[in-house]
Amino acid sequence: MTTGDRADVGELFGIELPIVLGPMAGGPSTPALAAAVTGAGGLGFLGEGYVPPDGIRRHIHELRGRTPGPFGLNLFVPEPVERDDPAIPAALRALAPFRTELGLPPPSVPERFGEDFDAQFAVVLEERVPVFTFTFGALAPDLVEALQGVGTLVGGTATTPTEAEMLTVGGVDFIVAQGSEAGGHRGSFLADAGHDLIGLAALVPQVLEVTHLPVIAAGGIVDGRGIAAALALGATAAQLGTAFLLCPEAGTSAPYREALRRARAEDTVITSAFSGRRARGIENRFSRHFAGSVDIPGYPVQNALTRDIRRVAAERGDAGLLSLWAGQGVGRLREIPARELVEALAREMHRRPKKGART
Amino acid sequence: MTTGDRADVGELFGIELPIVLGPMAGGPSTPALAAAVTGAGGLGFLGEGYVPPDGIRRHIHELRGRTPGPFGLNLFVPEPVERDDPAIPAALRALAPFRTELGLPPPSVPERFGEDFDAQFAVVLEERVPVFTFTFGALAPDLVEALQGVGTLVGGTATTPTEAEMLTVGGVDFIVAQGSEAGGHRGSFLADAGHDLIGLAALVPQVLEVTHLPVIAAGGIVDGRGIAAALALGATAAQLGTAFLLCPEAGTSAPYREALRRARAEDTVITSAFSGRRARGIENRFSRHFAGSVDIPGYPVQNALTRDIRRVAAERGDAGLLSLWAGQGVGRLREIPARELVEALAREMHRRPKKGART
Repeated sequence: MTTGDRADVGELFGIELPIVLGPMAGGPSTPALAAAVTGAGGLGFLGEGYVPPDGIRRHIHELRGRTPGPFGLNLFVPEPVERDDPAIPAALRALAPFRTELGLPPPSVPERFGEDFDAQFAVVLEERVPVFTFTFGALAPDLVEALQGVGTLVGGTATTPTEAEMLTVGGVDFIVAQGSEAGGHRGSFLADAGHDLIGLAALVPQVLEVTHLPVIAAGGIVDGRGIAAALALGATAAQLGTAFLLCPEAGTSAPYREALRRARAEDTVITSAFSGRRARGIENRFSRHFAGSVDIPGYPVQNALTRDIRRVAAERGDAGLLSLWAGQGVGRLREIPARELVEALAREMHRRPKKGART
Repeated sequence: MTTGDRADVGELFGIELPIVLGPMAGGPSTPALAAAVTGAGGLGFLGEGYVPPDGIRRHIHELRGRTPGPFGLNLFVPEPVERDDPAIPAALRALAPFRTELGLPPPSVPERFGEDFDAQFAVVLEERVPVFTFTFGALAPDLVEALQGVGTLVGGTATTPTEAEMLTVGGVDFIVAQGSEAGGHRGSFLADAGHDLIGLAALVPQVLEVTHLPVIAAGGIVDGRGIAAALALGATAAQLGTAFLLCPEAGTSAPYREALRRARAEDTVITSAFSGRRARGIENRFSRHFAGSVDIPGYPVQNALTRDIRRVAAERGDAGLLSLWAGQGVGRLREIPARELVEALAREMHRRPKKGART
């Protein structure tokens, strides 16, 4: 590895503060939340993995209508679907009692499991989004180049130094190092279940060893001290998602908010019960029920099979059957507007820990 | 929680640098290693959980002969042993092929599984050790007071904010917050397997929320940037164990050293195969063999049952059957004398990350 020339956050993203909003697909990400973060000097982000192409376009336009500043957008790299996976009928049987409980009709296998990635990607390219990140894999180098060709800065998500090496070879502009603390889906694509949970404090320095690219530190950070720690580790910026879940601008549902208010650090678990891909969230009845289960097909199949269960549970206010994605910083969330939160984070970053002072 | 008046590391331990050597029971901890760290301005530590009382006394005397400075000593709080646990015969059967492979006689159940904690504790009390920490539980308040009565500073190990609260109520003087990154045994005593792996960056601020005591950050730190990050999070000092495993003063065996030189961050796993208690180490044949197994009695039973397997494997240079405890910082270890390592850590702590400079 040669000596790199890592850009600072101003050069990289054209923003003032080393604060990036985590993309939170499935509800919490909204144009209003992203615009508030960008407006306060950070980098707002949209998590659009579950959104159809026309919805993505609408979100981008809404965000641009709210702020002229830069923003990012995240998509999931598609994974192969095996329609004859024997785990599918097994999962349908395992999910049947929950459907009955919620008054849902008998389960069926949907026509399509996930969104059409190519169509989603085409919108991102057309709209010349300032920053794009992808999760769950290594985006094909020609797609990375296509984005860079229209002026988009491209980042990939790594959970291990080896994944960071592979993304670097793949031509991205920066790396999001996802610590084990992070809420939501694990971005791992080479490391398996036992090996992709590296704590941020150990991960960031080891990712910096294998890449010359700027590294964004993600996972468990909810205050300015955490951001200062990420910068001390050598990161260019910190990415915070969970910290913003209780902001009024976030699309977090009412039962999800209530669970977040009560949760402590030790209440989150890694589960693949909701989507077929391992993700960190507050433990609840559904994740406990499927703990250790092998009747879970991969993403996006399980995600499609549980979709209406999650939808109806949210409508009924039942947090026991919802995906309650949250990182391990969950015990200390603030319920204030996103702009105020970014301003507080910026103040805390510069405040040195003083003896005898609780911050 | 009221505003605390947390001591700095000089007031707390009487040392210059916010660097505490992790206690590493079972070989790596030596008086020479502890003395070198104390001599360089940190706090040397002895991990004596497996050492009989007279051995502990000898180690303390040897350390005192090498340096007049302060040091710490760590013991394991005893756990109840069920001699009629059905997991014991199952474990004996499961371990038999490994014994055969190593030419060991048929297995038998030992008379005693662990050291006599009361006798170990009596030595620590008599010797008026400057700093004492305990792992695996909450030491009885009368024992904490007895130590404090002879001038010993007492710290407990917490893996969750709830454990830190309980230790604080128990009267300790400081808390070691053990992040999920940490090598060796998990100190958890309230949180179970799914809930005691909180990354350091999320754990430290949440422990600080629930205690007025000084907090030492442990887990995954192997360089000065990691120490600076721990201090930014609000910790009083950082505890580093794995970072010192390749120092010549450490009692790390030759095959263990060789495995450490080759390991990357993603190569460690949590296993209870060696001791009956979950611990982080480099994955190998033995931990893979018992992954997911239920034929593992608790600590200290399994530890006693695997002891001669580990001993003979070390003699034969077979890292596949050894406990290779290591934290997630394992990919970046330095093989230099402990004094030089402490000096390097101190320099790196104060070096600000510079643009374009690889540190």
